[in-house]
Amino acid sequence: MGSCADHINDALPSPLPVVTVAAAVLIDRDGRVLLAQRPVGKALAGLWEFPGGKVEAGETPEAALVRELKEELSIETGVSCLAPLTFVSHRYDEFNFHLLMMVFVCRVWRGAVIPTENQALAWVFPRDFRNYPMPPADLPLIPVLQDLL
Amino acid sequence: MGSCADHINDALPSPLPVVTVAAAVLIDRDGRVLLAQRPVGKALAGLWEFPGGKVEAGETPEAALVRELKEELSIETGVSCLAPLTFVSHRYDEFNFHLLMMVFVCRVWRGAVIPTENQALAWVFPRDFRNYPMPPADLPLIPVLQDLL
Repeated sequence: MGSCADHINDALPSPLPVVTVAAAVLIDRDGRVLLAQRPVGKALAGLWEFPGGKVEAGETPEAALVRELKEELSIETGVSCLAPLTFVSHRYDEFNFHLLMMVFVCRVWRGAVIPTENQALAWVFPRDFRNYPMPPADLPLIPVLQDLL
Repeated sequence: MGSCADHINDALPSPLPVVTVAAAVLIDRDGRVLLAQRPVGKALAGLWEFPGGKVEAGETPEAALVRELKEELSIETGVSCLAPLTFVSHRYDEFNFHLLMMVFVCRVWRGAVIPTENQALAWVFPRDFRNYPMPPADLPLIPVLQDLL
């Protein structure tokens, strides 16, 4: 294991377009977290991820997430029910973009969770995340959530 | 104290331009954190903040922060020495923008910290942050850092 200090003078990799997404860690009363499976036909199909989606230009991540949770899960939540947790910055060379994912915790919403895009959903205790393979960008969130919950 | 559930149906405030910045929690071997005072003449003059600056279009937050730390403090660090900690999303109505601040922890850099913009600097234990008034957007970071260090 080298130290990061060995890489201070490394050239930066060539820039890729930055895609900003907002994702929700929806937590139920038992401390389980909602995971959604990426459907067949999409990139990373079959892997499990935190629900959310792209932040459009000029949109705040909170506004994007309220919109996406309604579109994808038919639930309503509000900006003040979203608490910033952490973020992920991950270069996806194979897809030619750099992902910036703003991750919020949300414990309060209205309505039943209904998958409007036929995606499989699961409520999972963080200790069981290993049974739900995730995209590489989501992996750094596992210890954070195991620590939080 | 109401619940956030009371505000789920509130209309979103009118959109403001989103300004994305990257900030560093530079931590020395004793567990002190570097704060920089905003100079006279700038907005929020006299308040103390975490060093960093604006993320330009198409730039990753890490690349922006490496650049800013060199410009402002004349230190060199690398992308792999920056660990995502959390982020802040704060509406500055009085300045007409919405701030999105990506906060990284950095414990490894090269060179002595020299304030290149004549800004006052201080190495501060998180328990002493209350003696260093901060801009409203930085306040949510105080408990996070008191918990971390």
